[in-house]
Amino acid sequence: MEKRSILSYETVSLDDAKSALVIIDQTKLPYETVISELTTQKQIWDAIYRLEVRGAPAIGIAGAMGVYLAAKEINTEDYKEFCEQFKKAKEYLDSSRPTAVNLSWALNRMESIVLNNKTATVAEIKKLLHDEAVEIKAEDVWVCKTIGEYGVTLIKDGDGVLTHCNAGQLATAKYGTATAPMYLAHEKGYKIKVYADETRPLLQGARLTSYELHSAGIDVTLNCDSASSTILKNGWVQAVFVGCDRVAANGDTANKVGTANLAICAKYYNVPVYICAPTSTIDMNCKNGKDIHIEERPSEEITEMWYTNRMAPDGVKTFNPAFDVTDNQCIAGIITEYGIAYPPFEESLKEIFVKKNNTKK
Amino acid sequence: MEKRSILSYETVSLDDAKSALVIIDQTKLPYETVISELTTQKQIWDAIYRLEVRGAPAIGIAGAMGVYLAAKEINTEDYKEFCEQFKKAKEYLDSSRPTAVNLSWALNRMESIVLNNKTATVAEIKKLLHDEAVEIKAEDVWVCKTIGEYGVTLIKDGDGVLTHCNAGQLATAKYGTATAPMYLAHEKGYKIKVYADETRPLLQGARLTSYELHSAGIDVTLNCDSASSTILKNGWVQAVFVGCDRVAANGDTANKVGTANLAICAKYYNVPVYICAPTSTIDMNCKNGKDIHIEERPSEEITEMWYTNRMAPDGVKTFNPAFDVTDNQCIAGIITEYGIAYPPFEESLKEIFVKKNNTKK
Repeated sequence: MEKRSILSYETVSLDDAKSALVIIDQTKLPYETVISELTTQKQIWDAIYRLEVRGAPAIGIAGAMGVYLAAKEINTEDYKEFCEQFKKAKEYLDSSRPTAVNLSWALNRMESIVLNNKTATVAEIKKLLHDEAVEIKAEDVWVCKTIGEYGVTLIKDGDGVLTHCNAGQLATAKYGTATAPMYLAHEKGYKIKVYADETRPLLQGARLTSYELHSAGIDVTLNCDSASSTILKNGWVQAVFVGCDRVAANGDTANKVGTANLAICAKYYNVPVYICAPTSTIDMNCKNGKDIHIEERPSEEITEMWYTNRMAPDGVKTFNPAFDVTDNQCIAGIITEYGIAYPPFEESLKEIFVKKNNTKK
Repeated sequence: MEKRSILSYETVSLDDAKSALVIIDQTKLPYETVISELTTQKQIWDAIYRLEVRGAPAIGIAGAMGVYLAAKEINTEDYKEFCEQFKKAKEYLDSSRPTAVNLSWALNRMESIVLNNKTATVAEIKKLLHDEAVEIKAEDVWVCKTIGEYGVTLIKDGDGVLTHCNAGQLATAKYGTATAPMYLAHEKGYKIKVYADETRPLLQGARLTSYELHSAGIDVTLNCDSASSTILKNGWVQAVFVGCDRVAANGDTANKVGTANLAICAKYYNVPVYICAPTSTIDMNCKNGKDIHIEERPSEEITEMWYTNRMAPDGVKTFNPAFDVTDNQCIAGIITEYGIAYPPFEESLKEIFVKKNNTKK
């Protein structure tokens, strides 16, 4: 029997009987565990936009399951009409988070089921879409576990590791990406010490990462993002593991705002930074970080959200990017489900894709 | 007439006609601007204790003015009795913030007026105490303004600058330290653009710095601490100005946690970091940053304070240092009221003190 160390709930799942996308509402954590059953496209769009479901892989799964639920409701036997309505539903969901490549990736994969089965009946296509969404989730579990297996080779018993934001189980179907090496180290019986950046403005590190690691019995310490340089300077951590939203062909990595600050500080203190990146987040068509569009989010997240009183004066301007881009020179390795890419990434990432294309999973 | 560009209120001032200490209540900022006229010793004690007036220089001035107001009310012509009552008033105010060194320093300076004027009448001593309290404030204004005059030489019209925490007018009598170059640039008619780190966990940047600069009509943009690397990378700022809590003899600087992260990132992007440091904060007996003790603060600041709900799970460990130490190699210059010290700081800081000792102000 597999030794369980991770959480027992599922981040995102499909309830066929209820025609519902079932998620744990992450905006309510850690003080309330709310399981939401989303049955309309508006509810699913809102849940992605409001980060009730978040994390690139989880968003991809939610998008795939969401567009399947939309397809299920399309009331036609005509292939062409089905296609048109499917396309509309797909574009609608795709507009909820512009930076997350997984969302587009999953939705495109779902669309190709429709486009590649022109001769099938609409009912058959609906069945294929269902199976594809379920398969996308199963693949995510495999991807995360495999990233964990590669990543754990970089951790020694007794090590400290630091992470930013939540690239945890709550961001994926299981294991997480950045947390997968930690869960697997913990399963091996290693005593590790994790430092979790709280991750302003939405506090995913405080609310989610420290919650899931603490719940799993892993030794976790929460710190303000700005305390990370002291932690690195003091030699308390031997590696930084973070997730990513998009990796460019040269290794430049878009991830939650603050990742770049952390990686620059880690480089300054000679602590290696590893990006945990399913190959689905690696965009070989994106030459470098300059090509990555960074979403800017509402002022309220830093002027009033979460607080009982305003924490900034009325009318003050804000700059509130959701992500930043970490230069490839601050990255020690990119851990994928097909192995670890080391610098120079222009070469090593290509090799990862060669390996992927040659592998029958 | 002096062109006014800074806030029209004063952080702390004396109203002779009303026998009142007038402060802006900083616990109400930024959502309410409350000017408090404090006429009793209990009111003044409470205002210091409750951080309605805060920042080392501002507390010292409030203490000096407060003890003068106490002295003014002493109803005796007898020197000995006056001394006794003065001492009681001084000890009472001194107990409001036992660790604030500026408060004791200012109160001791006021007491020495009493002790050094044994032959004067009580009325004459009261006049001398009034003048000393006013002088303590005037000296603080001079120090800050002079730092501003040196600092503004490092700013060009159209520049962007970035700051962390609040080393502003609200912490001093006028101008602030890190903000002084900004206020003077604004007075010169420069169009500058200030980015203010919100400064977790207590949000002094959001609540105080963005408030005072915004109120003064300076173009200020509030950002999460973790957005600073993007701001630096984008070339939006040409310099970083921060205050300090203690500067070691080699230039290593203790300041609000996050200053070190910011300075490392600024160095990475070749943006100069300037420490605005009254010579009173430079500790030549402290060899380097390793000798500076860093206060660790309560978990609640990052797990529940400010929030209506907890933002981290119950029982999670925290690391919450109040300050960090910025390595001297990440600092471009230290701006004092006796000029700007450049690396190597071991030499240049000594020269600052030679200049100070040779100056009759």
